[in-house]
Amino acid sequence: MKKYDVVVIGGGPAGVTCAISAHNTYPDKSIALIRREKTALIPCGIPYILHSLNSVDENILPDGLVANNGADLIIDEVVEKEEKVLKLKSGKDIMYDKLVLAVGSASVLPPIKGMEKVGVFHVKKDRDYLAAMKDYTKKANNIVIIGGGYVGVEIADELLKKGKRVTVIEMMDRLLATTMDQEFGAKAREVLEKAGGTILVENKVSAILGDGRVSGIQLQSGENLNADMVIVSTGARPNLTLASKFGLAAHPRHGIWVNEYLRTMDKDIFAIGDCASKCDFFTGEFSSVKLASTAMAEGRLVGSNLFEIKVVRKFIGVLGSFSTKINGTSFGTSGLTEEKAKDMNLDYIIGEAETADRHPGKLPGATKIHLKLVFSRYSHTLLGAQMYGGDSVGEMVNMLSVIILNKMTDMDIDNLQIGTHPLLSASPIAYPVISATVDAIKKWYDYIPKKELTNRLDSRKKH
Amino acid sequence: MKKYDVVVIGGGPAGVTCAISAHNTYPDKSIALIRREKTALIPCGIPYILHSLNSVDENILPDGLVANNGADLIIDEVVEKEEKVLKLKSGKDIMYDKLVLAVGSASVLPPIKGMEKVGVFHVKKDRDYLAAMKDYTKKANNIVIIGGGYVGVEIADELLKKGKRVTVIEMMDRLLATTMDQEFGAKAREVLEKAGGTILVENKVSAILGDGRVSGIQLQSGENLNADMVIVSTGARPNLTLASKFGLAAHPRHGIWVNEYLRTMDKDIFAIGDCASKCDFFTGEFSSVKLASTAMAEGRLVGSNLFEIKVVRKFIGVLGSFSTKINGTSFGTSGLTEEKAKDMNLDYIIGEAETADRHPGKLPGATKIHLKLVFSRYSHTLLGAQMYGGDSVGEMVNMLSVIILNKMTDMDIDNLQIGTHPLLSASPIAYPVISATVDAIKKWYDYIPKKELTNRLDSRKKH
Repeated sequence: MKKYDVVVIGGGPAGVTCAISAHNTYPDKSIALIRREKTALIPCGIPYILHSLNSVDENILPDGLVANNGADLIIDEVVEKEEKVLKLKSGKDIMYDKLVLAVGSASVLPPIKGMEKVGVFHVKKDRDYLAAMKDYTKKANNIVIIGGGYVGVEIADELLKKGKRVTVIEMMDRLLATTMDQEFGAKAREVLEKAGGTILVENKVSAILGDGRVSGIQLQSGENLNADMVIVSTGARPNLTLASKFGLAAHPRHGIWVNEYLRTMDKDIFAIGDCASKCDFFTGEFSSVKLASTAMAEGRLVGSNLFEIKVVRKFIGVLGSFSTKINGTSFGTSGLTEEKAKDMNLDYIIGEAETADRHPGKLPGATKIHLKLVFSRYSHTLLGAQMYGGDSVGEMVNMLSVIILNKMTDMDIDNLQIGTHPLLSASPIAYPVISATVDAIKKWYDYIPKKELTNRLDSRKKH
Repeated sequence: MKKYDVVVIGGGPAGVTCAISAHNTYPDKSIALIRREKTALIPCGIPYILHSLNSVDENILPDGLVANNGADLIIDEVVEKEEKVLKLKSGKDIMYDKLVLAVGSASVLPPIKGMEKVGVFHVKKDRDYLAAMKDYTKKANNIVIIGGGYVGVEIADELLKKGKRVTVIEMMDRLLATTMDQEFGAKAREVLEKAGGTILVENKVSAILGDGRVSGIQLQSGENLNADMVIVSTGARPNLTLASKFGLAAHPRHGIWVNEYLRTMDKDIFAIGDCASKCDFFTGEFSSVKLASTAMAEGRLVGSNLFEIKVVRKFIGVLGSFSTKINGTSFGTSGLTEEKAKDMNLDYIIGEAETADRHPGKLPGATKIHLKLVFSRYSHTLLGAQMYGGDSVGEMVNMLSVIILNKMTDMDIDNLQIGTHPLLSASPIAYPVISATVDAIKKWYDYIPKKELTNRLDSRKKH
């Protein structure tokens, strides 16, 4: 029986990152990565298979990432475990010393009548399935997308670029509802509508119509819509089959329970990425946010800490940092939205700024960038940032994540030295991160009962 | 005689930012900004007047920035000061309570024979002068740029886009020599040469030739080159005329002496921006780096602290954060270069990464991004970052500045949650800031004498 020091189950970005990190930290240890799929995909690239990429095969996570980083890649499926021996579908047994579960998540399929009809697809991380889905879009003209989260919106954008008629149906009151505030959801709607999309919010699909093949949908509001294809993107749930076989504590929505170092109830088994439980950066409560940004940090941490805690975790919890691009407008968010701040009963101040992302604004390629910051009114720390604008949003959101993670205050941000360049960024005088911070400081400053403070000082002087 | 609570002298970005900040913090105070020039320019936009912008007037710092932010804009020149009364060229007197000098810097003109000839220009922040310079480029075909710092390189790039023959002559061994390491200077050279430019390094112009009008230059190496226009960009020196009239301590190269809160020897006079002395973030020594990123932070700080210290300064010293774009390739730098680390006798480790800035790399618009990080080998803190790549460099450099300012270590960076998106950023598995950090960690880790540590532990166990 083959024995490895480290076995990673799952070949998505979390598993691959963990295997690389393990090899970097423990170059003398033997490492295997077991993957069920013949081909691994880049999850966040999946929407772009439909138009921007020529084929599914342009969206592949290369096997070399594993093999060239000192790990054996085994295409097989783990079906059971006895002590430290993994039983594979092929009949082989593999022994491990440390085990990492990086088995990801799968689409949640809503209980809608007619989901089995030809022409209904969901976002499955499977090469052949997605190739068939791409193929199907060629014949489809009238496509309904169920779910207006960022995956649904990205798919809609791709299909609109292909010239399809696209309708997005969202249960909540806006697009991107779980990650961004009202005005950003409205902006996403505006840019999708500009591209020709139809958006129906506060609505649900009650049935998929058609005789074997999709011909339309029925809405909860009563209406019927014609459609020859339906794509479901209503979120994902952790894959828990193995965890349950292995007797590990897990929650159906939050995933396999792990401690701060991503260790499960079994001290030699770790879980990372979409399948592992997470807590929120701000509240410490369970978080069901599933993002590559978190999964990658977990993969690196576990890879380094398999045999001893080398990398001490400084920042815990899911920050929820992500970006997307819809019909040429980029969106980014990190940390708390205003809505979440309200939910938490948090005493906050909002700072806002809008400015051109080139200076002077007459330079070619200049786009307006709109930024909203959420500060703690008493603690003065930055807690959240949302923005839309040009491509620079992609890295500005990461800058803001670093600021939030470091618990920097409005005054700290005011002290920042920000590099700007006419062809690359906003004017130094109107740099949005600073301007929005100053906007918050002004509001906060207005709030101080100055008179009262002065009186107190005056009365002190008198004594 | 008119009296203001605050008078700012100088209408560049530092002065304007300071006036805005003063008005935001002290809305009840009267503020005036005195500017010599009829029109104020955006300094970093000046190279782009030559091609990307249609005219100098597209590169103007709008007067409204001052007027709409509660300050009086006075176009006049301060010639003398008696106690707290400023004597203006127009004959008017203005009294101040707090005074801010934001009088900037002026080009250093090297002592070359023939500098007075028609067709020799330098980078003067003057509307009419620059309009004449832009005009002159129309007739010129063969342009020599003296100085290969970032202004010289940006001007070269603009003129090459205009279809001119351009030669850059640089005294040091590479382009961008004071701000970036060898390989980045080489990359800047490569992209400028690709655009058709000629670069001569380790060379100097000994004379400008021509009968009244420029016809060529003589190099120190002996050669003569034909040229019908010469643009000098060999750095800048602080404007010290007023400081010297006011009796303030100043150094010809480093500027007006100021304390940590930018206050001069006179407790009611502050100095900010290019005219003010600065110390280096790492060494505390005088720094002669002149960057908008620093000037803006100073302007905001002084504006808030004029009447009392409200914003406590947490990070002092010039970080040297900037970005530029040459022939489509963006460059960024923040903090220490490897060369400066060596000069400081600093025990460092380099981490490097190169990756596509889209994922998968097959997506349209993908560009390679190359990142080099300088870490303290013992303290583990990030001290410097240099990069080139696509436009995302513009904000990535600011993210790295925030990391450096927060004295984050390699392990802190490894713990970061980085948002990535196929259309906006590198793959989460190969995000350059993380990859380069891991590269440094690996080198550092290799260095630990593991055997020795193990032996010590073993011997301890034995007792």
